[in-house]
Amino acid sequence: VRSRDPAVLLDEARSGDRAATGRLISMVERDGDARRRVEGLTFPGGGKLRRVVGITGAPGAGKSTLTDRLVTAARDEGHVGVIAVDPSSPFTGGAVLGDRIRMGEHTDDAGVYIRSMATRGHAGGLARAVPAAVRVLGAIGIPTVLVETVGVGQVEVEIAGAADTTVVVVNPGWGDSVQATKAGLLEIADVFVINKADRPGAAETRRDLEQMLDADPEPAAWRPPVLLATAASGEGTGELWKAIVDHGRHLVDSGELAGRRGDRLLAELRAALADRLVAEMPALAGAAYDRIVAAVTGYELDPHAAAGELLRAAGVGHPAGPTPG
Amino acid sequence: VRSRDPAVLLDEARSGDRAATGRLISMVERDGDARRRVEGLTFPGGGKLRRVVGITGAPGAGKSTLTDRLVTAARDEGHVGVIAVDPSSPFTGGAVLGDRIRMGEHTDDAGVYIRSMATRGHAGGLARAVPAAVRVLGAIGIPTVLVETVGVGQVEVEIAGAADTTVVVVNPGWGDSVQATKAGLLEIADVFVINKADRPGAAETRRDLEQMLDADPEPAAWRPPVLLATAASGEGTGELWKAIVDHGRHLVDSGELAGRRGDRLLAELRAALADRLVAEMPALAGAAYDRIVAAVTGYELDPHAAAGELLRAAGVGHPAGPTPG
Repeated sequence: VRSRDPAVLLDEARSGDRAATGRLISMVERDGDARRRVEGLTFPGGGKLRRVVGITGAPGAGKSTLTDRLVTAARDEGHVGVIAVDPSSPFTGGAVLGDRIRMGEHTDDAGVYIRSMATRGHAGGLARAVPAAVRVLGAIGIPTVLVETVGVGQVEVEIAGAADTTVVVVNPGWGDSVQATKAGLLEIADVFVINKADRPGAAETRRDLEQMLDADPEPAAWRPPVLLATAASGEGTGELWKAIVDHGRHLVDSGELAGRRGDRLLAELRAALADRLVAEMPALAGAAYDRIVAAVTGYELDPHAAAGELLRAAGVGHPAGPTPG
Repeated sequence: VRSRDPAVLLDEARSGDRAATGRLISMVERDGDARRRVEGLTFPGGGKLRRVVGITGAPGAGKSTLTDRLVTAARDEGHVGVIAVDPSSPFTGGAVLGDRIRMGEHTDDAGVYIRSMATRGHAGGLARAVPAAVRVLGAIGIPTVLVETVGVGQVEVEIAGAADTTVVVVNPGWGDSVQATKAGLLEIADVFVINKADRPGAAETRRDLEQMLDADPEPAAWRPPVLLATAASGEGTGELWKAIVDHGRHLVDSGELAGRRGDRLLAELRAALADRLVAEMPALAGAAYDRIVAAVTGYELDPHAAAGELLRAAGVGHPAGPTPG
């Protein structure tokens, strides 16, 4: 029987044991003590990551094939990890897209680690587990991680947006029907790539995207380049990797990398803090807790006011410490 | 100059002043004191709502036309409110879909109130504002509210799922490309309607959905009916309204209505509580706060462990009260 001790698993994973790496990631996917221990051990790995690249876009845009090409390009820099985030059906419990087979050419390469993660019906949990999984890869010595998300929903965009560099993949003819999605993707894109650019309409799509970028009233220091590629043949994928590396250099030179990562870590801290506090509130507020909750579910006391009453009952929020000023 | 006092506005809104209603909803869309006062005043309105119906589905599925038909059907029961949730572009700041014009036939009906709400770049805020806006409508005496969401992303599904009864709108030929979306929608659907059922493939789509429902290993007491409709001609929309009313009766008879609403209110309470606590943490934890945050952003202390240290620094979580047992 293999050890389930996170410290032992981490040593094994660092020696190249993929099963140990997989088990560590499984641990951060599930809530509980094991997760907290793995996070504690592997958290410093986040500081060792050279680049985390998010790849997002609509289903069928060709993200997997493109990711495959990027892995090849990234291998020149060292080991590469891929986290493929798949939505899953609550009815089957399994990942819907079994397309990891497309990553086939890298399966014999010990320098490439590929892992699928599924939502298992709780998208919020996944949004938290992915950054932790990326840090696990950093902790075992993988400097470059690609995070591929399957959808274009809010959660997928959030996950991909948690990368240092986000690549948004679209196809020729990407039209008005996804106007809303387009707006969301424009917000997170550091690099645009029009994949399947050998199809009609690539130039128009490029012009369309450039016009949307032109219309940004508050352009940032980095303007997302709009590239053409055909992942199936490999055409344009070298230029895509170069754009990713360019953006990485911009992040370092501008100091933005530390800022982006710091902001994300603060958001994680706030979420962890909120979880802990809410979980402890019944004990903290004592007998008042049930009364206040009943007033809310009885439409007598609104949630904001109830939150204030709970804090007073718990003696939190107005500590008897030194007064400001 | 019109009054900005929420209590005065509420009186005006109850007398049928639509501008006052609009202003109250605008107030709950924005964070701040006005929002909290409006929520405090209108919260009991949530208990007066007879039915809140969510209508969700992919862009282009015909939700607006269908909603229009449902308004007509619902008018037999009394006043009707419609909240149309539109995603918006962060670049234009405006709602992308200006299709409220399709609700045209109701614009002269004083018994119908229609309001669009846009994300304005912050989807989480919208997910919170919608239930508050629905309660504003309840507070001014509207018993039936339809909440129409434009997309099928996680947030839209969350918003629609916050209704008592959720109608999922699909079209014939709704295929494998939206497998992931399908799973998410199956989870929230109380009623399925295949709109544009005069197009080819409606029967196959119905069979497909029925098979997915058959495959549910843990079927609930209510099995979502799968209906056919053609909103443009009105065909099948009477049956759709009947199914919505049937589901409403099921919710009341089974006691599920109180349970669903109570669960949602508890979730709102937890969110409000987390917001307050996180906001007050720097003051509560004092000098330790900056040190702990720096340890997190320096990849020295993981967020979970940091949350524990912050609670200790704030003196929260282990109160010197009576010990359990």
